Amino acid sequence: MLQSFDVLSSPEQAAGRVASLRARFDEWGVDAIAVPRSDEYLGEYVPDCAERLAWLTGFTGSAGLVLVLRDSAQLFVDGRYTAQARAQTDALVFGYQDMVATPLSAWLETRAPEGLRVGIDPWTWPTASVRRMETALARTGGALVMLEHNPVDAVWEDRPHPPLGAVTIQPLDYAGERARDKLETMACAASDADVSAIVLADPSSVAWTFNIRGQDLPSIPHPLSRAIIPAKGRPQVFIDKRKTGIEAEAYLTQLADLRPPSEFDDALRALGASGTTVMVDPDAASHAIPMLVSEAGGTVKQAQDPARLPRAIKNPAEIAASASTHRQDGAAMVRFLAWLDAQGPGSVDEISAAQNLEECRRQMGEALQMPLRALSFDTISGSGPNAAIIHYRVNTQTNRRLQPGEMLLVDSGGQYVAGTTDITRTIACGEVPDEQKRFFTLVLKGMIAISELRFPEGTRGMDIDPFARLALWKAGADFAHGTGHGVGSYLSVHEGPQSISRRGMQELLPGMILSNEPGYYRDGAFGIRIENLVTVHEPRDIEGGDKPMLGFETLTLCPIDKRLVLAEMLSSAERDWLNAYHARVRSELAPLLQDDTAVNWLEKATSEL
Amino acid sequence: MLQSFDVLSSPEQAAGRVASLRARFDEWGVDAIAVPRSDEYLGEYVPDCAERLAWLTGFTGSAGLVLVLRDSAQLFVDGRYTAQARAQTDALVFGYQDMVATPLSAWLETRAPEGLRVGIDPWTWPTASVRRMETALARTGGALVMLEHNPVDAVWEDRPHPPLGAVTIQPLDYAGERARDKLETMACAASDADVSAIVLADPSSVAWTFNIRGQDLPSIPHPLSRAIIPAKGRPQVFIDKRKTGIEAEAYLTQLADLRPPSEFDDALRALGASGTTVMVDPDAASHAIPMLVSEAGGTVKQAQDPARLPRAIKNPAEIAASASTHRQDGAAMVRFLAWLDAQGPGSVDEISAAQNLEECRRQMGEALQMPLRALSFDTISGSGPNAAIIHYRVNTQTNRRLQPGEMLLVDSGGQYVAGTTDITRTIACGEVPDEQKRFFTLVLKGMIAISELRFPEGTRGMDIDPFARLALWKAGADFAHGTGHGVGSYLSVHEGPQSISRRGMQELLPGMILSNEPGYYRDGAFGIRIENLVTVHEPRDIEGGDKPMLGFETLTLCPIDKRLVLAEMLSSAERDWLNAYHARVRSELAPLLQDDTAVNWLEKATSEL
Repeated sequence: MLQSFDVLSSPEQAAGRVASLRARFDEWGVDAIAVPRSDEYLGEYVPDCAERLAWLTGFTGSAGLVLVLRDSAQLFVDGRYTAQARAQTDALVFGYQDMVATPLSAWLETRAPEGLRVGIDPWTWPTASVRRMETALARTGGALVMLEHNPVDAVWEDRPHPPLGAVTIQPLDYAGERARDKLETMACAASDADVSAIVLADPSSVAWTFNIRGQDLPSIPHPLSRAIIPAKGRPQVFIDKRKTGIEAEAYLTQLADLRPPSEFDDALRALGASGTTVMVDPDAASHAIPMLVSEAGGTVKQAQDPARLPRAIKNPAEIAASASTHRQDGAAMVRFLAWLDAQGPGSVDEISAAQNLEECRRQMGEALQMPLRALSFDTISGSGPNAAIIHYRVNTQTNRRLQPGEMLLVDSGGQYVAGTTDITRTIACGEVPDEQKRFFTLVLKGMIAISELRFPEGTRGMDIDPFARLALWKAGADFAHGTGHGVGSYLSVHEGPQSISRRGMQELLPGMILSNEPGYYRDGAFGIRIENLVTVHEPRDIEGGDKPMLGFETLTLCPIDKRLVLAEMLSSAERDWLNAYHARVRSELAPLLQDDTAVNWLEKATSEL
Repeated sequence: MLQSFDVLSSPEQAAGRVASLRARFDEWGVDAIAVPRSDEYLGEYVPDCAERLAWLTGFTGSAGLVLVLRDSAQLFVDGRYTAQARAQTDALVFGYQDMVATPLSAWLETRAPEGLRVGIDPWTWPTASVRRMETALARTGGALVMLEHNPVDAVWEDRPHPPLGAVTIQPLDYAGERARDKLETMACAASDADVSAIVLADPSSVAWTFNIRGQDLPSIPHPLSRAIIPAKGRPQVFIDKRKTGIEAEAYLTQLADLRPPSEFDDALRALGASGTTVMVDPDAASHAIPMLVSEAGGTVKQAQDPARLPRAIKNPAEIAASASTHRQDGAAMVRFLAWLDAQGPGSVDEISAAQNLEECRRQMGEALQMPLRALSFDTISGSGPNAAIIHYRVNTQTNRRLQPGEMLLVDSGGQYVAGTTDITRTIACGEVPDEQKRFFTLVLKGMIAISELRFPEGTRGMDIDPFARLALWKAGADFAHGTGHGVGSYLSVHEGPQSISRRGMQELLPGMILSNEPGYYRDGAFGIRIENLVTVHEPRDIEGGDKPMLGFETLTLCPIDKRLVLAEMLSSAERDWLNAYHARVRSELAPLLQDDTAVNWLEKATSEL
């Protein structure tokens, strides 16, 4: 099994570890150390060797930071982790702060003692965060101290080795564009921007540009690596050669010089020493990168990572590969849903559901010769009231059996070489109360509104997010997350710059893949989310109109539970959409399902409403 | 008549005037002078004495600027004024620039000769514009020269005197809050922001704060004035005493020291010299204001004008006064529409329609003892293809007769002491083609979508703008303007910070008044706009929901032309909305109409669809 449901945390170790850190404060010339969740690649997922926050505190959430002072320590987490942070850590060692209400910089400005010297590892913070901390500390006469080595690593004796996941070459059939051509475009971008080189600090940008993938992390198939692309001359890729193997090394050497990650600092200093201007993305790059370039005498031009937007705009090969992946993944979902419906009342729990789903994806991958390489993220499998916890991760302590009259929310996805999937279905167990069906139908109306939308060129994600909410708003309800995020091509399931959300400033462009996932959550009672991935299609003429309109094509193929739909609440256009979608699901998935049970289940699940 | 339809422009004078300006360049130490449309109050409307751009060039549009160089001059206007600018000005004297594609700062950076010294009057530009010009000129070795006096005034010999419109006290029944209390709140805001004084540079903020109104401008009833509100001590109002009269002077003297506008410079220098910090709005204040404070040794804190948001949030007295104003204004509209329908084919032209409407407003004002004080703006009265010009202003040269089979678009409003109105109706003349009715119905669907909307707290104008477009988007169409703007209480018909538009970052808050005015324009053929004013109501519980929702109440009362509605295109909810709206229009307006003709017309116009 790829996913583990064990509770891994050792709060009892924290006191000693924090003490050993404090013992080095004088040597480092600091009064405090700030340690974030993120690692030197600033990734959403970090390898075991970079689980510094968890090692130091016991807290295993995906976002947070700790400020260790001489006589106290403050753990900063957001609202979704308030309870978990307290459960996983020692309250004698840590105080708790809400990092939304009081971000670290606000705390430093208003609560820290005068003249505080805070040490950080500039590799683990982006420039924007560093600037905020500096400003806050300056107001109280304090200072930020850039440490030469990571402070946690200095006291973490049995720290695991960095991962050495094998690097693979992404087939051109799925990538759709040669690395050589991407590199040429990027060198031109450097010339146009009047810089001598671009630093690609985001491993996903390196993976996309060079058409390589990796296995360093559980859910993001990029190899931990960085690159420098000069306007003229040979690119350099900083990657551990033990990961590349003969084939990938030969491939990469055609395109670039391969250098060990340990030489990245020197390469930045050399760039700076030559007095040139270097392009760095202040949001995607560790602060250490511009710092080293500047200190050596170079100039830093802050600009968005030039791979970010092209990576988000999938080419026809990537779209075709994603569509094929979604057929396979949808067939696996159908097997899972058919199995789920066949289980006796009270016999399935959240973990067994997640495990069965993973097994269905694995088997379907074997059958169709496109193996499941990873889960896109830990499956969210929440029954009854647990489904109301938006970022719920089931473990052996929270696991509960699905009871008749409840709904099960399953948000999951698979990583396949041909593409990345992300799908949520909310499923009825027995006869669910009408009140819950009413909200299911309202959420479905929002999901259909996005699916059916037509919009002109220039429309941003923020412009369309409210369409997913209108039906809920009319009913006096809303959901507290964005409607959709970008999704990579066998890369991260959370990809920018595109999103459908309140902050989605990016124009929606043909080829982008996004999720469409409205929801509704009633605390302590039930939770609903319905999610399909969609891709933006080219502007199309509409008869009688004067402006071609963009819109979405749905990639995800899997029945939506009709037993939860109050048909009389749907308009005829909405009903038509659902019936047409189900007809398409049936015709595309049935050929992939050999067994009669699943086909019969599919027939019934996709019959006309 | 308040509105004139004459064409006023004297292009033949420009060559001599530009030459007299150039003759002073050496004396001023400049190579060029930039003259904007805006005056020293940065207002949307300027008094005759500040029509500097029109005097210098002949161009009378509401936005634009001219850059006069030694041997050429460039007139910058936006797309809506391209044709007008060429028609009104001498092409031997001026080149023409699109100020959207190439703003002045971009032109200065890319097209201006090296080392250009550009003179400006810092009273006529906000700080943001000054900074852009400075940056652009710095890149080519040039410089911005702050002139001590306005350069156009120096050569404009018979310049009119500044207006001396009488100042009136806004009755508390309509203002709803005493000036004394507003001033107290503002002094607290100054203390909270740690500044010693607030400069109110926007005359609408002065008018709102002190509950006064004026008659200096044709359409905005604020007196041209400024104020300084200290955190402690007595406010100062800078206003010509010839405007105040005995009553207003006695009233204002209770609240503040009255000083002539000519002493404003000295007051700013005195503030600066005392070394204190002063709050100035960089968007609402002339750059000269922070400049004088800083030069004298003070510190400037840039922050939004503290009257801007409270002014936008109308109190119950203001809302009640506005509602009453809208009944009266709606009754005037009904008289006008009844008259229009009674005219023979081909007998009404755009000017006679606008004149009749103004007369209806005047008569209704007399009858109901709430006289029409001004038009909110020059009435837009466009028939057939003229209606497709979004900012069309009819004059004797463009005037055309309304023909059967065409539509007339009339966008107009009245200024009354109790409130400001703004309404657009598009009216059928004879049997209009179905294709035009189809678009009328699509626009109506957008207008109803906004009217019916419910939305949670925190929703911004930009979040709801697309709902006004959805029906058009589906049909392959859109409109190239925002859905709505804020409206003042017997103040400017265009009021910030609230808007319903792509750039509407301001949260919608209970009490705000906004327009709801989607449209559709087919070049050279026809134009449609339907506009009601609405006010945001308090959050209300919705049965079965868990989140109280805000929404709109409609202020404008006037039939929407049912002859242009294709009923089969409306949903039953949309039809219900229209019928309920018309029932309300009928019951609220009928009592105000004495004559049988208008009442009969109203009955028919508001009968069930």
